Amino acid sequence: MASNDNLTAVLYGINDIRLEQRPIPVPKDDQVLLQMAVVGICGSDVHYLVHGSIGPFVVKKPMIIGHEASGTVVKVGKNVKHLQPGDQVAIEPGVPCRFCAFCKSGDYHLCADIFFCATPPDDGNLSRYYVHAADFCHKLPPNMDLEDGALMEPLSVGVHATKRGFVTVGDVVLILGAGPIGLVTLLSAKAMGASKIIVTDIWDVKLQTAKELGAHHVIKIEKGMEEDAIVAKIVELLGEQPNKTFDCSGAEQSVRIALKVTKSKGIVVLIGMGQLEQTLPLSSAIIREVDIRGVFRYSNDYPIAIDMVASGKISVKPLITHHFKIEETVKAFEVARTQAGNPIKILIHANPNWKPNKK
Amino acid sequence: MASNDNLTAVLYGINDIRLEQRPIPVPKDDQVLLQMAVVGICGSDVHYLVHGSIGPFVVKKPMIIGHEASGTVVKVGKNVKHLQPGDQVAIEPGVPCRFCAFCKSGDYHLCADIFFCATPPDDGNLSRYYVHAADFCHKLPPNMDLEDGALMEPLSVGVHATKRGFVTVGDVVLILGAGPIGLVTLLSAKAMGASKIIVTDIWDVKLQTAKELGAHHVIKIEKGMEEDAIVAKIVELLGEQPNKTFDCSGAEQSVRIALKVTKSKGIVVLIGMGQLEQTLPLSSAIIREVDIRGVFRYSNDYPIAIDMVASGKISVKPLITHHFKIEETVKAFEVARTQAGNPIKILIHANPNWKPNKK
Amino acid sequence: MASNDNLTAVLYGINDIRLEQRPIPVPKDDQVLLQMAVVGICGSDVHYLVHGSIGPFVVKKPMIIGHEASGTVVKVGKNVKHLQPGDQVAIEPGVPCRFCAFCKSGDYHLCADIFFCATPPDDGNLSRYYVHAADFCHKLPPNMDLEDGALMEPLSVGVHATKRGFVTVGDVVLILGAGPIGLVTLLSAKAMGASKIIVTDIWDVKLQTAKELGAHHVIKIEKGMEEDAIVAKIVELLGEQPNKTFDCSGAEQSVRIALKVTKSKGIVVLIGMGQLEQTLPLSSAIIREVDIRGVFRYSNDYPIAIDMVASGKISVKPLITHHFKIEETVKAFEVARTQAGNPIKILIHANPNWKPNKK
Amino acid sequence: MASNDNLTAVLYGINDIRLEQRPIPVPKDDQVLLQMAVVGICGSDVHYLVHGSIGPFVVKKPMIIGHEASGTVVKVGKNVKHLQPGDQVAIEPGVPCRFCAFCKSGDYHLCADIFFCATPPDDGNLSRYYVHAADFCHKLPPNMDLEDGALMEPLSVGVHATKRGFVTVGDVVLILGAGPIGLVTLLSAKAMGASKIIVTDIWDVKLQTAKELGAHHVIKIEKGMEEDAIVAKIVELLGEQPNKTFDCSGAEQSVRIALKVTKSKGIVVLIGMGQLEQTLPLSSAIIREVDIRGVFRYSNDYPIAIDMVASGKISVKPLITHHFKIEETVKAFEVARTQAGNPIKILIHANPNWKPNKK
Repeated sequence: MASNDNLTAVLYGINDIRLEQRPIPVPKDDQVLLQMAVVGICGSDVHYLVHGSIGPFVVKKPMIIGHEASGTVVKVGKNVKHLQPGDQVAIEPGVPCRFCAFCKSGDYHLCADIFFCATPPDDGNLSRYYVHAADFCHKLPPNMDLEDGALMEPLSVGVHATKRGFVTVGDVVLILGAGPIGLVTLLSAKAMGASKIIVTDIWDVKLQTAKELGAHHVIKIEKGMEEDAIVAKIVELLGEQPNKTFDCSGAEQSVRIALKVTKSKGIVVLIGMGQLEQTLPLSSAIIREVDIRGVFRYSNDYPIAIDMVASGKISVKPLITHHFKIEETVKAFEVARTQAGNPIKILIHANPNWKPNKK
Repeated sequence: MASNDNLTAVLYGINDIRLEQRPIPVPKDDQVLLQMAVVGICGSDVHYLVHGSIGPFVVKKPMIIGHEASGTVVKVGKNVKHLQPGDQVAIEPGVPCRFCAFCKSGDYHLCADIFFCATPPDDGNLSRYYVHAADFCHKLPPNMDLEDGALMEPLSVGVHATKRGFVTVGDVVLILGAGPIGLVTLLSAKAMGASKIIVTDIWDVKLQTAKELGAHHVIKIEKGMEEDAIVAKIVELLGEQPNKTFDCSGAEQSVRIALKVTKSKGIVVLIGMGQLEQTLPLSSAIIREVDIRGVFRYSNDYPIAIDMVASGKISVKPLITHHFKIEETVKAFEVARTQAGNPIKILIHANPNWKPNKK
Repeated sequence: MASNDNLTAVLYGINDIRLEQRPIPVPKDDQVLLQMAVVGICGSDVHYLVHGSIGPFVVKKPMIIGHEASGTVVKVGKNVKHLQPGDQVAIEPGVPCRFCAFCKSGDYHLCADIFFCATPPDDGNLSRYYVHAADFCHKLPPNMDLEDGALMEPLSVGVHATKRGFVTVGDVVLILGAGPIGLVTLLSAKAMGASKIIVTDIWDVKLQTAKELGAHHVIKIEKGMEEDAIVAKIVELLGEQPNKTFDCSGAEQSVRIALKVTKSKGIVVLIGMGQLEQTLPLSSAIIREVDIRGVFRYSNDYPIAIDMVASGKISVKPLITHHFKIEETVKAFEVARTQAGNPIKILIHANPNWKPNKK
Repeated sequence: MASNDNLTAVLYGINDIRLEQRPIPVPKDDQVLLQMAVVGICGSDVHYLVHGSIGPFVVKKPMIIGHEASGTVVKVGKNVKHLQPGDQVAIEPGVPCRFCAFCKSGDYHLCADIFFCATPPDDGNLSRYYVHAADFCHKLPPNMDLEDGALMEPLSVGVHATKRGFVTVGDVVLILGAGPIGLVTLLSAKAMGASKIIVTDIWDVKLQTAKELGAHHVIKIEKGMEEDAIVAKIVELLGEQPNKTFDCSGAEQSVRIALKVTKSKGIVVLIGMGQLEQTLPLSSAIIREVDIRGVFRYSNDYPIAIDMVASGKISVKPLITHHFKIEETVKAFEVARTQAGNPIKILIHANPNWKPNKK
């Protein structure tokens, strides 16, 4: 680490990402210093870029972006035992307080004082170097690479969602929306043994990917289709009602379909957040004892996500559609914003030695 | 049983209840013949009386009313072993098919072919004599009487709801609505060890009853109160957010309050059904992983309801406000419909020997 | 069905199986008449043959044997709607009373009054024709044959066991014993997403099958190996402790290993019953909050077993090692008893048209 | 705190407790300094005194004793927000690493690196002053005193055990052993709504206390009583089998009774550890799907224990039988060792201002 190059991508405000040099940080006793490798772009990153805020989280001062990341350990704090320089890790971006009731009861993702990369006011990790709590750096096994590592973040959302839905063998799964979250939910449901999976979206190209990843059926939602027609179509294709439904779109129509189509005693998991106020036929689910469960990030899910890939159950590689160098960050975000070329996952490479033709 | 008097209350249509003689039925091998004792009036009975239907259930032909009932065994079918003539029983009004997947997996209340007293087209049991599946007649212990027995039906709704909410020691419970369902939910939550219970309603008299039954706090909802003010008031009185909320009103405002006020990782149980379409801030609960769970009747809950009362944990007697003879059925329903005199539970006595002054 | 041939295998006493003609039975309203196809031999069948009893169950009068069976519907009772003549079905051999608390709460396998094929005094179904409760006849999908159907019985034991062990993605599974039950547990664990599976046995040939079915590691237990050495070997091969352990042997040493090796907060599932009295280091598991859970047959597991095979997750075909005609029943049981030729599953074909070279 | 008196009880070896002055410690940022009030004597303390070890935990160097404790906050570290000087707290004696998988998933009691008061080599808190992690100091509400506070430690064991047993309304509970752990299990089971509780012991005086605390039935186990006779007696008194059994004795006979008497699908919770090797009829429970679950200390249970007392559900005061000043520590331990005067809970008062007649 003779270098002191720590090129860093900083969001200064709406549509204002700047690359600048920052000092290389020094790890504390429980931390590691990482040479950053791969950082994926998430829909929330784009939302901050375009709107400057998500709900109560407002970018009030320059914030380093990036939170779907992997890197290589360069230096370890004196208390760190499970990692050593050279280890490749997937970085779980949220580090909770470790002291509150949520932290103690296994729900650290609900900790009110959690540090979370690139959620204001916390800095992210799209930079050459970054320090992070060592225990939230998950060592990658030999058969996984750093691109896989960066994808453990979205995959953990899928794992958390399917755990919230108790997906297992025999389940008939409906996934509404085939964007990145829909696809990682599909992968997780498959790894957990779901028997049949049907996916809906408005874009053919996304449905095509869903099929390649293992969806048994897909439905293209056309403009103007009535929700009851979609409900009927889902049941017709499956030959039965889905007992586990995942809304990955947040669209009011999707939530309505989820509430209506799910089998009695089933579960609707809502991952997409959508508009705060929605007009919903809630009682159509309630009266049939269909549970409705939300998803907020993940907790204790990274090890399972890594295991799903390491054990060969699934591959996240098909999600990767675009590669950029950190120097091209603005361009990468432009593709993410415009969706030009139908990106699924756009990866930014922070290692100066990375070469675009390496794959 | 020298008598052949089987006076029976039959709903012929909207606002048309008639008392008429029906033949005394003969029990099948797995059934018992009951001399009916007490039948409570439920909100759904009144709804059929006033509207002729509830959702998809329409009164198309004359239907015997009544489903919150108790009676005394008069005769047992040849396969019946656990009951004998003279036994006093609480009658669980739903008898499922016993063959479908729901019946086999413990969720018999979701059986599509369930017989359910006084849900069209099935006859109820407000009559002198009635036959019922013996295994859905729950023997009352010596320290419970037939009035308690009739109240096991609404109490079972409370038990089912609090089981759906996993109520236990340490829980801080909010109950929205202090009608009969709110009150049985309160009793069940108390028996299950809830630490603090707060109840809301628009009527002082109902809140008074809630306090007598063990509510630690009550809030009177005044016309025009803003939902956020009510949310703030609940938290202020409790000193914290409730982690288990039960909506027993079905009102859109109540459901909205439930979604907003419940603590992260808590549970909202919806018992009141209300309007099919509601405008809701669903994501305010979802993003905090507050589960939303519905309640449909009950299954395997009668034994627990009976146990709550038999063991002395709670008393259902304070719920009883009015008594009528079966001959006064029309009058009893008029009180139920108009709510004159602030009734909670109105009991109709089917035994000709019952005397109003007995209590 | 012009035929009135109902050749039937009857156990008269120890080592006394006789083939004899019985009348073709007539289905009741809720039953179907089946032309029997395939009946597998289970260890319990052999136990009755050799010992005349299993625990409290004693063969006191001639009993038709066989309970791992499939057949084709010939005639349906008048209440039967989901089946019609020609349907191929897997026969779930236990038909519970449908009235007791266990039946109502989803645990019908614990019903004290269950009818269970070939458990004295109930007759089994190794015969040309047999009647059974229609709702316990599970229709096979087009991509499964009648041999698969017969194997749904042992596979359901595996499903039940892995459900009792809450097996899911990320689990590290130890299976002690690679007999038929060990192998179906392996298949179920695999279908439910277990990450690593290690299997032990004393026979190389069984471990070979375990590997072919997907075990990641196998350990041959040699005579005289110390239990602590085996514990150490398991941990060494896995690189960690298993968090879910299934004893499928009933041997005291195996149970001891299970208690010692399982990870804190893990689960030990005991399927093999073994000797009533065992000397065990129970506290070595207890103090680490390792749960110990038993398995008794299955409930609501047939549909999942069928789904596992129909969806292509697993194949049960590799378990089938021997075929006999019903006329050769005595010979088939002799192979089962002596284990000559290392049988896993021995199938007896009851259809007179079956030909040994058909496969 | 002008005083620099920090009289401290130190275990130097077998039967060698010495009182000596130690420096008053200084709290770190996340800690508080406590003026110690009440320290109860636990069976494990006596075991260390008499044997010098418990299993792998050996007293190799002088160790301060005491871990069932309460105190008053004197000084807070700079990160501490929820406590201030003057607050009275119950001290949860185990402080886990906060970094391992157990800590993150809600099972911090299984943390391999946990600090635990008076478990070698960690010092306890029978002293005038003591520092502890602030988040493991639970503030007592106004209606609880410091003696209650010290008793939250054993009560938390009871809470943890009854949570492991999922005790709720309708449960029929058997508690084997009426020592302090049996009694706190009884109190917890009562607070969680158990319907019937039966307690066994060999001492009349303990059974008397059990009755006073709410046991519905008690059985005195006489020398030479056969286990099957005891099983029969339990069922006879209850009128049914218990569905939740807690062994609080560790005696082989008790564990055997637990396995035999518990209702099918019930739970046996083992709290007492007893001898490592026991001869057990394990299959008598296993074959009936009775789960066997152990208990190791507690996690997230202190708040519930405090709530049980604060809400008036139970009182722990009847458990207190003896009081000593810290200067009398040797004498107090002598009473604990000899059980002279049938002690249940012996409290040692560390505050120099405490007066024996205060109660």
